[in-house]
Amino acid sequence: MITFDRHPDNYCHWTLSVDGAIATLTLAVDEDAGIVPGYQLKLNSYDLGVDIELNDALQRIRFEYPTVRTVVITSGIEKMFCAGANIYMLGTSSHGWKVNFCKFTNETRNGMEDSSRHSDIKFIAACNGTTAGGGYELALACDEIFLIDDRSSAVSLPEVPLLGVLPGTGGLTRLTDKRKVRHDLADVFCTNPDGVRGLRAKEWRLVDEVVSRNNFDDQVRVRAKELAADSSRPEQATGIELMPLHRQIDDIGYHYQYVDVVLDEAAGVATMTISAPDMVLPEALEDIHAAGAGWWPLAMARELDDAILMLRTNNEEIGTFVLKTHGQIDAVLKADSLLVKYQDDWFVREVVGMIRRTLARLDVSSRSLFALVEEGSCFAGTLYELALAADRIYMLDIAEEDGNPPHIALSTMNFGSYEAVNGLARLSRRFYEDEAVLNVLKQQTGEEIDAIEAEEKGLVTFIPDDIDWEDEIRLLIEERASLSPDALTGLEANLRFGGAETAATKIFGRLSAWQNWIFNRPNAVGEKGALKLFGSGTKAEFDKRRV
Amino acid sequence: MITFDRHPDNYCHWTLSVDGAIATLTLAVDEDAGIVPGYQLKLNSYDLGVDIELNDALQRIRFEYPTVRTVVITSGIEKMFCAGANIYMLGTSSHGWKVNFCKFTNETRNGMEDSSRHSDIKFIAACNGTTAGGGYELALACDEIFLIDDRSSAVSLPEVPLLGVLPGTGGLTRLTDKRKVRHDLADVFCTNPDGVRGLRAKEWRLVDEVVSRNNFDDQVRVRAKELAADSSRPEQATGIELMPLHRQIDDIGYHYQYVDVVLDEAAGVATMTISAPDMVLPEALEDIHAAGAGWWPLAMARELDDAILMLRTNNEEIGTFVLKTHGQIDAVLKADSLLVKYQDDWFVREVVGMIRRTLARLDVSSRSLFALVEEGSCFAGTLYELALAADRIYMLDIAEEDGNPPHIALSTMNFGSYEAVNGLARLSRRFYEDEAVLNVLKQQTGEEIDAIEAEEKGLVTFIPDDIDWEDEIRLLIEERASLSPDALTGLEANLRFGGAETAATKIFGRLSAWQNWIFNRPNAVGEKGALKLFGSGTKAEFDKRRV
Repeated sequence: MITFDRHPDNYCHWTLSVDGAIATLTLAVDEDAGIVPGYQLKLNSYDLGVDIELNDALQRIRFEYPTVRTVVITSGIEKMFCAGANIYMLGTSSHGWKVNFCKFTNETRNGMEDSSRHSDIKFIAACNGTTAGGGYELALACDEIFLIDDRSSAVSLPEVPLLGVLPGTGGLTRLTDKRKVRHDLADVFCTNPDGVRGLRAKEWRLVDEVVSRNNFDDQVRVRAKELAADSSRPEQATGIELMPLHRQIDDIGYHYQYVDVVLDEAAGVATMTISAPDMVLPEALEDIHAAGAGWWPLAMARELDDAILMLRTNNEEIGTFVLKTHGQIDAVLKADSLLVKYQDDWFVREVVGMIRRTLARLDVSSRSLFALVEEGSCFAGTLYELALAADRIYMLDIAEEDGNPPHIALSTMNFGSYEAVNGLARLSRRFYEDEAVLNVLKQQTGEEIDAIEAEEKGLVTFIPDDIDWEDEIRLLIEERASLSPDALTGLEANLRFGGAETAATKIFGRLSAWQNWIFNRPNAVGEKGALKLFGSGTKAEFDKRRV
Repeated sequence: MITFDRHPDNYCHWTLSVDGAIATLTLAVDEDAGIVPGYQLKLNSYDLGVDIELNDALQRIRFEYPTVRTVVITSGIEKMFCAGANIYMLGTSSHGWKVNFCKFTNETRNGMEDSSRHSDIKFIAACNGTTAGGGYELALACDEIFLIDDRSSAVSLPEVPLLGVLPGTGGLTRLTDKRKVRHDLADVFCTNPDGVRGLRAKEWRLVDEVVSRNNFDDQVRVRAKELAADSSRPEQATGIELMPLHRQIDDIGYHYQYVDVVLDEAAGVATMTISAPDMVLPEALEDIHAAGAGWWPLAMARELDDAILMLRTNNEEIGTFVLKTHGQIDAVLKADSLLVKYQDDWFVREVVGMIRRTLARLDVSSRSLFALVEEGSCFAGTLYELALAADRIYMLDIAEEDGNPPHIALSTMNFGSYEAVNGLARLSRRFYEDEAVLNVLKQQTGEEIDAIEAEEKGLVTFIPDDIDWEDEIRLLIEERASLSPDALTGLEANLRFGGAETAATKIFGRLSAWQNWIFNRPNAVGEKGALKLFGSGTKAEFDKRRV
């Protein structure tokens, strides 16, 4: 079983050091510390374990080091920044493992850009050696790229010529959409295993600066300070320690304080119940800071994030997530009011970012998502986003005399704080940015909306009554489990990201789809495929037919 | 060998009838006239041959029936509009055939939307019976959908539940981006093999009107006339007959009047040479009409279109198209000046549309595209678009004393007439919509630009001199042929469509990629896969792991 808990004291591959407003993340991969056996992580290449540490380090910087404004990512190994994803790991992994690994690394890199955009944490890739494949893709996720000019260090994307696969961790998308590298030069670059170095790398927009070895550290430092000067991160602030999650794993599932996951392997379903705050939340900002990692919005988000990752990585045969909530609507709306009230506070801003990125993980999870609005539920504001992220929402329509009719409620947080991967608030996505509809809904912020009104307003999919409910939900789950998992993955990936496009939707929706296709093709993974044979001394043999 | 020449007199599957401003295309598929043996086209289902006729009929309407303003697409078979792509054909076809078939049908449907947008030819799908899968996708490509209300006829996309594949001919993209069907309702719709009928189909935005059998034809007619009233197509005009192409096929390649294709199977290369007008083009509009299908811009485009289709369908192992031109730059610029001068004339508008759609075929061809600007070439204006569509442009840099230095030239036609599939002029795409760069280039319209200046301005990729040229081009071709064809397909699909997105890029870039992946998965095409087993009475067995 893979877990995602890490702490800087125990990192195998990264070192996090902080000096005033500048943090430095130094990669020196421990060759023998792969997350699964069977390969060595040579040349500062990475596997899932290396990226889990990076993800942890980014979280620490966000929360534990609030005065950090610029992050420098560099290498601790001579003349080798990073050789990218480990090829033997890729060559020996199952299709599902490869795809899940790529998804997580994509999310981590998108998370860096999310923090740059929303939190003014800027990233510099200080490429002090060879920067190849996923190593260059990591650099591309940074705001600026500095490349050492030593007559040998190049940036490269050798996936196509060496491995017969794509630079699939955002590489192709960021070359064009982010760095605006001319498409013909990008074609040359991506088919040349040696890459590009020196001034040409700058002329082609592949890097921002090319600096001699003698001046490299100084110039990176100078630029890091310049970027720090413009940041809105606080000058002085006390960090919030990210205490370890309290998670219990047993035969039933994964259990946290506010998130509970019950597994039904036979049905292929994980039921995730997210609970509202169980206590009165502190009102004053200083008390919120004092609550720290225990503050409900952050604790809930961290637990949900972990649960999603655990399920995706360890429970491949769980094809459906059933999303439930439990607790008081008022308590959730109260939490949302604090998120709004203190939105300019650095910590609250980071908490909103954490929730935003966690919801985005749901968006790109290749699992069917069904939200069930039942008695005792609290799909309000931030928690209603779970329903909005779902492929369908079922809400129980029950009379007062027969039970406790559930309600949903909107809050200000539903109107832009949690943009989905396509850059839109999920309500905007749901209604295709129809301002008339959205304005009516805005007027209803804070109101409790019953099933009939919710259906009428388009806020839920179906509202079975208490007589039909059980059968309908059972059928829903059974029918879903009877469908092709692959077809569902494709269907959901297309329907979830209608309308607006961003680099993230391109990465997850287009680039990943092509990579998945290629990862399944004999030319890559067959006995004579390029990925399979890499390093064996035997040349790949291709079926030349174009598709 | 598959050819794309058709004539209404010999259609097997469609009937084209014209009544004033309204054309009716009636589908009554001949079950026994599949384009390859091995299956019957039951239930008005289609294969490539059915779609080749549709493509021909659309061309006839555009050129031979200029006063047609609305096209009604309907069925001649009782209670069955169209059951979509024939499943036995899909189940027995190779991966490459399926993908190529889907691409052509996508292009035909995108072409209908192109004509609606640019030429005011509006389309009504008159769904007078069951409208399933690709049948509904054909309807989605129309401007409006009328569904008969007979208590049985439904629209449906049963691909996911019945076949384990996607509605991949634009279906998923058009549901969301074109018709703005709410994503949760779309999820319900796409997983229900029975589809949706009656008023619910209208409420969910799946169709525009639901009409009883008695009133169906009348209401379609009324609406067709309303749409016709707003069209800018001419009230009176004489059509231009699309004479058969003069094409010779021999061991060397495909030979037309203005397009010549030389095949080198061993190298995996087709060299396509497009020639400039070889005579003085008529200046007067009436003489242009009189020239008709022989007018150079139209003749050239039809030949190029046919050549691309022939190569894609019949020459799978040709992985690279080398694009060359031959003739006088002035002659091409003269043709362009006529395209601009008479842009409001219906015929000239259709010719521009034909060129636009032909260039878009290049954009989505899964072949490497290299343009070679050599001595005697004429990459000017419209023909320079070929170079802009290419993955790379090589231009010979030769001194006056050593030969005949080639030039390129821009015309007004390069600044918006031929939008690529991402909705941008290819020059805009090349320079990421940088207005400053584009404005400088606009000033140079009509000027002959030599190699050094072309490279400096970013209009070509590389400018080898005459000493290096031969070796460099040989290496280019050899290196390309050594790479994985699948990886190249993915690379090119991603790099060609950077920046802006449209429904078309989503269809070709995202939806198709997912479909390709699924078409390669055991859950669809394995011995126990859903597509393989459809109709056999044996239920598919799925590997339940989500990817």
